[in-house]
Amino acid sequence: MAELAKQSGVSVPTIKYYLREGLLQPGHRTSVNQASYGEKHLQRLRLIRALVTVAKLPIEKVREVVQVVSKEPPVIEAMAITQDALVGNAEMEVGNEMATQLLAEIISARGWNSHEGSPAHVAAVNAIARLQKENFDAILGAINDYAEAADTVGRIDVQAVAVSENLEAMIRGVVLGSVLRRPLLDALVLLAQQHYAQCLNQEGADPIWLRQS
Amino acid sequence: MAELAKQSGVSVPTIKYYLREGLLQPGHRTSVNQASYGEKHLQRLRLIRALVTVAKLPIEKVREVVQVVSKEPPVIEAMAITQDALVGNAEMEVGNEMATQLLAEIISARGWNSHEGSPAHVAAVNAIARLQKENFDAILGAINDYAEAADTVGRIDVQAVAVSENLEAMIRGVVLGSVLRRPLLDALVLLAQQHYAQCLNQEGADPIWLRQS
Repeated sequence: MAELAKQSGVSVPTIKYYLREGLLQPGHRTSVNQASYGEKHLQRLRLIRALVTVAKLPIEKVREVVQVVSKEPPVIEAMAITQDALVGNAEMEVGNEMATQLLAEIISARGWNSHEGSPAHVAAVNAIARLQKENFDAILGAINDYAEAADTVGRIDVQAVAVSENLEAMIRGVVLGSVLRRPLLDALVLLAQQHYAQCLNQEGADPIWLRQS
Repeated sequence: MAELAKQSGVSVPTIKYYLREGLLQPGHRTSVNQASYGEKHLQRLRLIRALVTVAKLPIEKVREVVQVVSKEPPVIEAMAITQDALVGNAEMEVGNEMATQLLAEIISARGWNSHEGSPAHVAAVNAIARLQKENFDAILGAINDYAEAADTVGRIDVQAVAVSENLEAMIRGVVLGSVLRRPLLDALVLLAQQHYAQCLNQEGADPIWLRQS
């Protein structure tokens, strides 16, 4: 266990806590007070650390994800459970018929095979409903362009974890990717905004070359 | 003032508060206790509401943005002040030389004319440093692809507000766009992830067609 602590960077008391909570699978007992831990334990610990320290999920959510992963389900199922745990359960806002309709059109236009009723789906409807409530037509009018950019980002995200050696490493990648990639993309978008804002003239209207780029 | 309250949806006491705080310019006085308000006041009020209610900025930050906008500066300056106010001032993390270097390479590769030392720049360095700290090479390896997607999103963002009739409407668009567009893009990315995750087989490794798409 001391060796496992050293390799994972997780302290022995914390490892014992994860064992008690049933998050970490028991080691292979070699004597009354000795057990051996292998690569699988290390992978599991890394996944738990990502869920606890990076994603800051409550322990029940960590357990939910770890239990699913330890059953070695199809990748898509493990990813769906992880994504749902990370997104959380937002309430669907009332009066969202128009938003639901618009999202359905976008999903259909992109040919996305997506999971209706998932937390991500609820989040998308709510985001659209809020823009509609503010009558923010400029953003809503460009929604298909945003969806195209989102398609690219989602594809890169999945590609980035697809090369993982095993399911636990992949799910750890989904967690880190989701939590750490988001501020990166947000910040890069801000820098791109700075760049394109320089193309706006004092009057602001109709910067023709911007529309053509 | 009653008419202004009706058109803006902001209550009379709140309008009086904004007048006292010097955020809203005084009306044109028509008698001892009457003043007339016009289109400019309505635009200003809409901007203030976006900064207060949607972006939830503290009143000092609202004043900072409004003061700059009311001087009718070049668009780029007003946008920069607004973006900085929205992003906030993060501390640059220590030991970020590698991250700073990587960001400089990305900015140069994209040809972005961006503002070094801006809060957005600091946020980007910190995001990269965190990924490096976790040795998350899968995401870091794809950083140029993310930058390309960010370029598209930043361009659409700027285009969406470029058609505004006046500076105050444009800055209101920047605020609403920044605050409300982000959850929309995040949710659309999650839906795209769901779609692409279905292409991963049980083993997860090397889903060839995914790489070609």
